[in-house]
Amino acid sequence: MSVLVVGSTALDSIKTPQAENPRLLGGSASHAAVAASFFAPTKLVGVVGRDFPKRYVSLYEKHGIDLAGLQIQDGKTFHWSGEYEVNMNNRRTLLTELGVFETFTPHLPEAQKTTPYVLLANIAPALQHHVLDQVHRPKFVVADTMDLWLNIALDDLLKLIARVDAFVLNDSEAHQLTKEDNVFAALKKLHRLGPKYVIIKKGSHGSILSSPKGYFICPAYPLHRVVDPTGAGDSFVGGLIGHLAKSGGSVDKNIRKAMVYGSVVASFCCEGFGLKTTTRATRDKIEARFKELARLTEF
Amino acid sequence: MSVLVVGSTALDSIKTPQAENPRLLGGSASHAAVAASFFAPTKLVGVVGRDFPKRYVSLYEKHGIDLAGLQIQDGKTFHWSGEYEVNMNNRRTLLTELGVFETFTPHLPEAQKTTPYVLLANIAPALQHHVLDQVHRPKFVVADTMDLWLNIALDDLLKLIARVDAFVLNDSEAHQLTKEDNVFAALKKLHRLGPKYVIIKKGSHGSILSSPKGYFICPAYPLHRVVDPTGAGDSFVGGLIGHLAKSGGSVDKNIRKAMVYGSVVASFCCEGFGLKTTTRATRDKIEARFKELARLTEF
Repeated sequence: MSVLVVGSTALDSIKTPQAENPRLLGGSASHAAVAASFFAPTKLVGVVGRDFPKRYVSLYEKHGIDLAGLQIQDGKTFHWSGEYEVNMNNRRTLLTELGVFETFTPHLPEAQKTTPYVLLANIAPALQHHVLDQVHRPKFVVADTMDLWLNIALDDLLKLIARVDAFVLNDSEAHQLTKEDNVFAALKKLHRLGPKYVIIKKGSHGSILSSPKGYFICPAYPLHRVVDPTGAGDSFVGGLIGHLAKSGGSVDKNIRKAMVYGSVVASFCCEGFGLKTTTRATRDKIEARFKELARLTEF
Repeated sequence: MSVLVVGSTALDSIKTPQAENPRLLGGSASHAAVAASFFAPTKLVGVVGRDFPKRYVSLYEKHGIDLAGLQIQDGKTFHWSGEYEVNMNNRRTLLTELGVFETFTPHLPEAQKTTPYVLLANIAPALQHHVLDQVHRPKFVVADTMDLWLNIALDDLLKLIARVDAFVLNDSEAHQLTKEDNVFAALKKLHRLGPKYVIIKKGSHGSILSSPKGYFICPAYPLHRVVDPTGAGDSFVGGLIGHLAKSGGSVDKNIRKAMVYGSVVASFCCEGFGLKTTTRATRDKIEARFKELARLTEF
């Protein structure tokens, strides 16, 4: 079955202690759609400006991503610029130029409205609602977010969380939203907002699922060097929904494996700037790391 | 087979945002020996003063701990006082009264010198060396430490690390010792110091083993509330060596299960002040949490 991904499509200028990389392909939808495309047919909903490089369109196409929902508008592509500290954990936004995102309204092509798996990747909650309003009886809807929306669009976000099957956020966002330091106490509070599945991402420490079948402690793939973690969370959730769509059937039965596949795609993402190393992954390489994670966690 | 534990035997006054608890039974050897005692016959080497409450001696005895190596000296028992912040991650030492530890020299009773499994729990590296000098061809030696010794006894500590089979430390200590932010890069450097097995503890995020058979990603047991994490690391390493001693045979074959048992005992430790909840654990309760961790991590 197929996946619909809505989110940001951006140009990212990323500075780390080692290097500077201007105008890479970025955005939550770019990372998530490429990640999902390794597993299932994927459709991207987003907007770019006339300055969006042709090679980035080719990159989406190379991954077989359906671009019928990608609007190309007069104006500039959303541009984000950020800097990482030495330990790669703290990120500082240097610049945000919304460009065509300022007036973006997602319109789903008729054929995409019945997509069974929907990923509302990180973007303004109002836009996530807008996409959700247009899809007909999806089988499974996952929403991701970021701290920005907790700060400036909390009401919209809370209403969105109540509408989705699965809600994904990182540990600091979970703390901000629930005031709980303890991940398991936070998960309990997050369920009360509505979703059947809640996943807290903990970066290099992996992630935790809380579901009707209980918790799952999901490992991160061991990396000796993180080059650029931008998009790792988007890759995680993209790989996750991609594998769920590929498997079909019971989410409870498949979600653990789906999270591990998400971890694996996220690990490729962290090994290079932008989407450079994610796009170099293959099904074989993904399968090898999945099996390695199984070996690394068995006891 | 049996376990010899050397480390601190102390009175801990612990303050958390919820409560104050003066003069609890504490110290690395107390936590580690009680943890090990659930799995294998355990001998404790340490020193206390005349003020050491009889009920604490009874507690050791209740766990069948061999106290032939516990010296009772004129003077005061080592007293540590500390305070936790709201999130239970940051600890501040308020007071350290060394008491009888100032002049302590561990003397192993003849019968203990052939103990096959030796745990050099957190204590001055010079004392860890001193115990190691007295044991005859142990089968397996594990050393733990703390940031204090990295600051004031680094040379002694480095020499000790080169003498042991397994070295255990937490993530911030690993960073301090190797200057590496990345856990896997740190593990690589720590192996160069000598030990065949290195374990980095990450608190609620679990722990990572690096061994000749590769990495093992060990989960922490999910707790909704941490009452007092003091001694959790000591309980982890005590449970670990206890299970290795119980199993005998190949360390490579048993160390993963041993770490998970260590995690389980550490989880009981965190649920109450001092040793209160650790001592209430039973083999059945430990087995139940071990099985639960197996279920929580399978995919």
